[in-house]
Amino acid sequence: MSTQAQLAPILEVGGDPLRTAMAQTEERLRAAASGHGAVLGGWADGTLSAGGKRLRPMLVYICAGEPVSEAALCAGVSVELLHMATLVHDDVLDNADLRRGRPTVYATGGRGAATTTGDLLFSRAFAVLVRTGDADAVRTLSGASSALARGELVQRADAWSPGVTVERYLERCELKTARLFEAACRLGASLGAPGAEAAGALADFGRRIGVAFQIFDDVLDVSGPVERTGKARGTDLLDGTVTLPLILARGRDPSLAELDLRRSVITAAEAEAVCDRIAATGALEDARESALGHVRQAKAGIAGLGLPAKQQQLLDLVADGVVERYS
Amino acid sequence: MSTQAQLAPILEVGGDPLRTAMAQTEERLRAAASGHGAVLGGWADGTLSAGGKRLRPMLVYICAGEPVSEAALCAGVSVELLHMATLVHDDVLDNADLRRGRPTVYATGGRGAATTTGDLLFSRAFAVLVRTGDADAVRTLSGASSALARGELVQRADAWSPGVTVERYLERCELKTARLFEAACRLGASLGAPGAEAAGALADFGRRIGVAFQIFDDVLDVSGPVERTGKARGTDLLDGTVTLPLILARGRDPSLAELDLRRSVITAAEAEAVCDRIAATGALEDARESALGHVRQAKAGIAGLGLPAKQQQLLDLVADGVVERYS
Repeated sequence: MSTQAQLAPILEVGGDPLRTAMAQTEERLRAAASGHGAVLGGWADGTLSAGGKRLRPMLVYICAGEPVSEAALCAGVSVELLHMATLVHDDVLDNADLRRGRPTVYATGGRGAATTTGDLLFSRAFAVLVRTGDADAVRTLSGASSALARGELVQRADAWSPGVTVERYLERCELKTARLFEAACRLGASLGAPGAEAAGALADFGRRIGVAFQIFDDVLDVSGPVERTGKARGTDLLDGTVTLPLILARGRDPSLAELDLRRSVITAAEAEAVCDRIAATGALEDARESALGHVRQAKAGIAGLGLPAKQQQLLDLVADGVVERYS
Repeated sequence: MSTQAQLAPILEVGGDPLRTAMAQTEERLRAAASGHGAVLGGWADGTLSAGGKRLRPMLVYICAGEPVSEAALCAGVSVELLHMATLVHDDVLDNADLRRGRPTVYATGGRGAATTTGDLLFSRAFAVLVRTGDADAVRTLSGASSALARGELVQRADAWSPGVTVERYLERCELKTARLFEAACRLGASLGAPGAEAAGALADFGRRIGVAFQIFDDVLDVSGPVERTGKARGTDLLDGTVTLPLILARGRDPSLAELDLRRSVITAAEAEAVCDRIAATGALEDARESALGHVRQAKAGIAGLGLPAKQQQLLDLVADGVVERYS
């Protein structure tokens, strides 16, 4: 399903205010990269214009409510800039040549260009956010950013490990993915006026759908199909990243528990074969169910807040959308 | 000359307030890395405890004046964290195994650990700074940080180039080095109460000694001696980094102007030989004189402000110290 198709129902309910905010987000993302030299601007612009669902800015705007203020736009753009910065660095660490079907900065400009472009996007994220004049907002973003870095290192420390537990995996999801979703919702909520209780609930909502998002991403890596995901199955296995499907499958199939990923999963064909063995245990269905559980919890947590009907509907659609990516 | 010996005259004039602030800076730098997981904490702590002159925090405290406030300490620590973040990333890009005589995160933990540790230090810089609650301060730091990234890319774009002008070189010094010195002075001045004119002059002072600092660093790379610098001569030449000594020497010795660095300077011995040829043109003396000119300008720019005598003396000592590193 294309990005547009995934987001269409949300944009339809969001109407002009949301559509306009998303269009302004694109403009501002490109502007954020300009004014820092032609070379760097080129790399950063290429990264930013490669697209993406812009789910994190959308969460900022939905949580902030209408009308979408200048401060909300700054927060939305900054969250996406931080996200893009980490993607550019991830591509360096994963030696990734393609992202969203386009050559990465790493592939085109090399390690130096990519590391530095990431650093620039990182600093632009804070530069844009501070336009709101809100020190709490900067604190929220820097906290999420520290969590992202820690999550990345946890992932590397656990690479190839036979002993990764579900709890450890979920902790990593929280650090690597959920904390930035949470930050998006928290930043948005702080700009609306939902009261402290609702603001906390919206932040929890963000964290829960963030975890669900990551679990589904990890299911997708095993299940494919390639035509939908745009990448080969088993990429995580080849990188040594131990995800929920493998953890669950290890508990069911002793031969998988004994498998030494580092030695036995070297080629794409071997990775695909292990994906099939994981799928055969039924672990994918259980991992999907785990993600759905997080989505249900997320929706339940905001159900009784008395949010405006349109806002409630939008949040439910986003939560479901995290799941429907893969249905 | 050791770090201690370089700083001794400054600390003597600064007395207890400055000594205490510098000791607190060390404590807080280590605390900044804790609470983010054992693995990451270990890498970050190793980096931070490897030491350094802490010249940038010192500038914050001197510009802020006495007593050194909580906000000044936050600003000082954040500037150093940002500086350390860029060093860790630079080590990845330069494949550097040693820094200040210790193994780098890159050497011990690899590319992934180092990139991520840099990202963490980066986000901690903003997290610490925002404790001041001052959005302008965050704006200052993110501006300097964007400049650093841009400077790094300018350096990479100009690598091996035969056409780098003095102007282009100075622009790079400003981006890569001087803007963070400027930010340190600006952050400090904003916490003292020197008035707008003096605050602007202090920022200019920081920028000028930052340029001088970089020029001297580049002279040192050519002049050595190794016992003083702790690194081989001609490292910049081997990296293709075109610095002021080479630019000036190219204008005097046609054979250097025709030299293709990328093809002709591959080994350490070749790099040393080119260093000797650069030195033979007299370019090192002129580069040193250029740096001294920036130091003189820096000192002249704050001479008439009517700053407190102790503050004035400390600033002059720091400015001179930038030069005396290499005398």
